[in-house]
Amino acid sequence: MEFLKAITAKEAHDMITAYPVSPHTEIVDITEALGRVLAYDVVAEEDIPPFSRSLVDGYAVKVKDTQGARETNPALLYLKGEIRIGREAQVVLESGSCIYLSTGAMIPEGSDGVVMQEYTRKMGDAIEITRAVYRGENICYTGEDIQKDSAILRKGRRLSPFDLGALSALGITGIWVYRKPSIALISSGDEIVEVGQKPAPGQIRDINRYTVASSLQRKGAAVTFTGIAKDDIEDITGHLRASAKHDMILVSGGSSKGERDYVTAAIEKLGGEVLFHGINIKPGKPTIFGSLWGKPIFGLPGHPASCMMVVIRFVLPLVRRLEGESGADEQRTTGILTTNIPSSYGIEEYVRARIHHNENRCRITPLFAKSSVISSLSQASCYIIVPEGKEGFEKGDEVTAYYLD
Amino acid sequence: MEFLKAITAKEAHDMITAYPVSPHTEIVDITEALGRVLAYDVVAEEDIPPFSRSLVDGYAVKVKDTQGARETNPALLYLKGEIRIGREAQVVLESGSCIYLSTGAMIPEGSDGVVMQEYTRKMGDAIEITRAVYRGENICYTGEDIQKDSAILRKGRRLSPFDLGALSALGITGIWVYRKPSIALISSGDEIVEVGQKPAPGQIRDINRYTVASSLQRKGAAVTFTGIAKDDIEDITGHLRASAKHDMILVSGGSSKGERDYVTAAIEKLGGEVLFHGINIKPGKPTIFGSLWGKPIFGLPGHPASCMMVVIRFVLPLVRRLEGESGADEQRTTGILTTNIPSSYGIEEYVRARIHHNENRCRITPLFAKSSVISSLSQASCYIIVPEGKEGFEKGDEVTAYYLD
Repeated sequence: MEFLKAITAKEAHDMITAYPVSPHTEIVDITEALGRVLAYDVVAEEDIPPFSRSLVDGYAVKVKDTQGARETNPALLYLKGEIRIGREAQVVLESGSCIYLSTGAMIPEGSDGVVMQEYTRKMGDAIEITRAVYRGENICYTGEDIQKDSAILRKGRRLSPFDLGALSALGITGIWVYRKPSIALISSGDEIVEVGQKPAPGQIRDINRYTVASSLQRKGAAVTFTGIAKDDIEDITGHLRASAKHDMILVSGGSSKGERDYVTAAIEKLGGEVLFHGINIKPGKPTIFGSLWGKPIFGLPGHPASCMMVVIRFVLPLVRRLEGESGADEQRTTGILTTNIPSSYGIEEYVRARIHHNENRCRITPLFAKSSVISSLSQASCYIIVPEGKEGFEKGDEVTAYYLD
Repeated sequence: MEFLKAITAKEAHDMITAYPVSPHTEIVDITEALGRVLAYDVVAEEDIPPFSRSLVDGYAVKVKDTQGARETNPALLYLKGEIRIGREAQVVLESGSCIYLSTGAMIPEGSDGVVMQEYTRKMGDAIEITRAVYRGENICYTGEDIQKDSAILRKGRRLSPFDLGALSALGITGIWVYRKPSIALISSGDEIVEVGQKPAPGQIRDINRYTVASSLQRKGAAVTFTGIAKDDIEDITGHLRASAKHDMILVSGGSSKGERDYVTAAIEKLGGEVLFHGINIKPGKPTIFGSLWGKPIFGLPGHPASCMMVVIRFVLPLVRRLEGESGADEQRTTGILTTNIPSSYGIEEYVRARIHHNENRCRITPLFAKSSVISSLSQASCYIIVPEGKEGFEKGDEVTAYYLD
């Protein structure tokens, strides 16, 4: 029997990153585009705002007319009407006069500042200005938000609510994004039963189906569960064949090297290739990565916590590439460790932890639990990475914690 | 004309937190439960795992039989068969013998440790054990993950992928959650046109509809856009009436005090009550909060960045309460400011910023932009809060940054 010749986490990342993917594109409505990944750069075809606008309710003035104005020595300007919101400014502001406008109204030609209503007094058909205005004060100039011909959003970006705001400002309602990758998920193991079943002695319910599927769906993938496979080469190849039309295949369980190494056997039987089997990480060592029918396939550890850490660290980055996303950053925080974390040299370890923010300080408390334990992930809000070149961290060390949710 | 008598951010939070809400409940399938909020505590009716399991491929032993075992002086144990995965262990382990089992298989009675296959050698029908085993080694005991009768998930918790794993382990397929709150969204302003339209001079396209709706949807709310209202008391009351069946109403634009204060007027005309108008924050001062037909209503600033900061700071906490969520923590990081942030005493200010992680250090760079500018939110990854009692922060200060996405 052959034991794991595990590769390093970096080698695994490199091989996964080198795996070629070619995401497809589709057009979606702006109301459906949240969280989708842009397939082309968006270049502004207009200035936003399309005209200079007032940021406040007040009076458009010439700045030089307000020089030296103060409460006890106001500048007196003649009120020459109002520019209605939503209308074109059809007057030109002349020296010695001012024009009323409310927030968002167009700045008239000849004006280079707006005085807030709070710093004015109405005196018949004149306005007393009690404060000097600086050039550009309370004006949002044409193109100040978005400049015509500028690339405002880059290909590969996952669209946020704010991005949708920028797109709507430009009148873009149909957005070219990458298609959601379609991922097939198989659970395997003679001991695994459906969640609705009462396990017989020696059996347990399927957990990985729900944790893995929901994590991938949250990142924008379309997940199809193709069932529970028995520890049997025929049954596993059958499930793999049923997953052939998807962009990626995940099999949880059956990834240990040894007598039950059905996933490797099934990949090879179907003409695929195992690229690596085993990563020097904890938890998650017995992980398989390969290629079948030109598509990436992972064999994931059966233990729920191991399985999820491998999904988070190794599967999701590939899912993001399948989605066309480039250069996304995980949300994380730096903080002070509250206890020692022992770890073994030569293994990259993922330690689940909790975060406590207090004022501008952050404390990070590791939770120690076995890899089979799902409740520890439920209780954790983050995880810490102990690099393979370190034998753990000490209490008081400053570390980076990655948010789990 | 009346100017804003603004209240503090804390007073605003207190009034919003005091607003009574009573979320309804419904039952959903586990495959639909991600991100939903639990309506009842979940108490485990079983131990998980339901039996003690092996964490590795190897041999179940009696720990005392392996005492002192090492490579050069192995313990010799007779192999008394195998416990198949998914089956009940029907043998009792006796001293001097061992039983083969693979990862996940049931531990036989009489065994208190499992030796990994890597530390064994097969010698005919005996096994040489080359390493001593400690008590409990490689065993996950009955109930070690989840203990029967323990409350594993509390009411008010937003369900994560890991929570779904814990629920599936317990065989819980139908989950009682709070109903998604239904939120009506109205854009208002004579200058606002639909995103598909070409704005005439003085007009701009609706931005807030898309930024606000997508932010609320991401947090689990069901948002209905009820159209663009003109700056006209009849049109606004008409839109409010059309929103009456929803759990909360949001109107963006028309919230400044002054001639265009149609939202306040419309709320009062319909028999509602304005609870506050104006918060000492920047951006977002002209914010209205009130009660109409026993439901909360917000008047949001029209400027896109102001509008979104008010949604993030003041609307979302109420949306979370409407969803039944309790005690959620925003994702944040601590870091070092790269430039000064000037701010005014007496105003709570929200400054958009970018985060740069490098090793275990985090640097935070403020982006300065006008409140009307949506592209600055698109570029920011976080925001910093300058408390009202501070006149800004200095370069090098340690601050907390809240993730925007």
